[in-house]
Amino acid sequence: MHTHTIFVISDGTGITAETFGTAIMAQFESKPRIIRVPFVDSMDKVHQAVRQINHVAEVEKRKPIIFTTLVSQEMLEFLEANCKGKLFDMFGTFVRPLEVELGQKSLHRVGRFADISESKEYLERMEAINYTLAHDDGQTNTDLTGADVILVGVSRSGKTPTSLYLAMQFGLKVANYPLIPEDFDRKQLPPALVPFRAKLFGLTIDPNRLSAIRSERRPDSKYASLQNCRYEVAEAEAMMRRSGIEWLSSTTKSIEEIATTILQEVLPQHLGH
Amino acid sequence: MHTHTIFVISDGTGITAETFGTAIMAQFESKPRIIRVPFVDSMDKVHQAVRQINHVAEVEKRKPIIFTTLVSQEMLEFLEANCKGKLFDMFGTFVRPLEVELGQKSLHRVGRFADISESKEYLERMEAINYTLAHDDGQTNTDLTGADVILVGVSRSGKTPTSLYLAMQFGLKVANYPLIPEDFDRKQLPPALVPFRAKLFGLTIDPNRLSAIRSERRPDSKYASLQNCRYEVAEAEAMMRRSGIEWLSSTTKSIEEIATTILQEVLPQHLGH
Repeated sequence: MHTHTIFVISDGTGITAETFGTAIMAQFESKPRIIRVPFVDSMDKVHQAVRQINHVAEVEKRKPIIFTTLVSQEMLEFLEANCKGKLFDMFGTFVRPLEVELGQKSLHRVGRFADISESKEYLERMEAINYTLAHDDGQTNTDLTGADVILVGVSRSGKTPTSLYLAMQFGLKVANYPLIPEDFDRKQLPPALVPFRAKLFGLTIDPNRLSAIRSERRPDSKYASLQNCRYEVAEAEAMMRRSGIEWLSSTTKSIEEIATTILQEVLPQHLGH
Repeated sequence: MHTHTIFVISDGTGITAETFGTAIMAQFESKPRIIRVPFVDSMDKVHQAVRQINHVAEVEKRKPIIFTTLVSQEMLEFLEANCKGKLFDMFGTFVRPLEVELGQKSLHRVGRFADISESKEYLERMEAINYTLAHDDGQTNTDLTGADVILVGVSRSGKTPTSLYLAMQFGLKVANYPLIPEDFDRKQLPPALVPFRAKLFGLTIDPNRLSAIRSERRPDSKYASLQNCRYEVAEAEAMMRRSGIEWLSSTTKSIEEIATTILQEVLPQHLGH
């Protein structure tokens, strides 16, 4: 049962505000319910949002918390004056002191994504997603020259979600290759990857966790057995060590943490833009 | 050439703070350069960050702007006292008034993602990504009962990136199917989709833009010709209208906007959690 209701009121998608609000609320013991109200871009929609907030305030007999990124001063003032919630203005709180610091007035720009789909950055991101999908799980060896990074690791060590995240969030072209028993028998990297050693990054994983993940898919298989997982992980780590490939363990890391560590190690220029 | 340097200093990945800071800076004409400094979780790393900031301040002869989400009071105070930048404390600014509002002290929790990979939500998200990859581009008709939403639309209308985003961001299982000339000849939806009409959502796109996108891949092909794109889009829209499928145009929308609109129309319960 939730202890509070949090509303995220945005004239855009509100996704960034919700993620940020969730991170802030993680600093409290409370188990809040979060309701995102996107595309609040007319007075009519502000009225609707106020009704929704006030209904919850009445039912729960406590003030909801409102995180808002509304840019329109008129909408913001109406929301503040009429809603029975505690308002936190995520944008204005920083925009006003930044106006002083930068010596500029802010643009009061609503719906900043309106022309994003035309932008060069957007098209590059689409291209990165297509590249990454085509090069998932060792499907092809073509155009590895075009890859920004090539991930290697045993099956189910987290290569695919990490690759997709790097493509979607950072517009990077990522190929990924499984290290398989044949590679361990040969004690060598897949031959196609050898010319690209500088772009290789390894993922490893605790064998117990790997066995649990693989068992979800193929229970009671040799593939999922702890003994086999221990063997594959040990062989993969030995191969990465021999080949001088940097690697990290995905065991207790989120995708965002894995992706950020890869940027730090292999592509530090992508931490700035 | 950038007019300002913005530093994002975080004890975690700093990805959320960077996205939020970028949205705030979009309210100004300035073209800032953004440098993310992740995993600042020791006094030693704070010292390094201060040196990096002060170096930029000296070279650029103007104060960098610092967005920080550091949780440690000691690190925050050191940063504030020693860096030659203008500091914006993104967390503390909201956490302190929330302590009053909630009647609770905050937890001062650093690295909140530490156990995320063990959580049920995380495993569900992995499962959603796997499902969505397996059901990309009409690859299979199996287990459509398990889909949260099924996207349809002509080739290159934005189905794949939208599907992956819904899976990664919201943990939804998404299948997507291309509408192809054979479907238009039969004037009927792909038969496998008919039982799942309530889960279908359509994407359409301006024929001029579709032709431009397809031309990048296959220049001077019939597939990419404006005439063919006009025909396919008109047929796809007519089919969706006949079948009572809700749809939107992806032409000027970001992936985040498309995804949020789909949630509003098909899965409104996923706007709250």
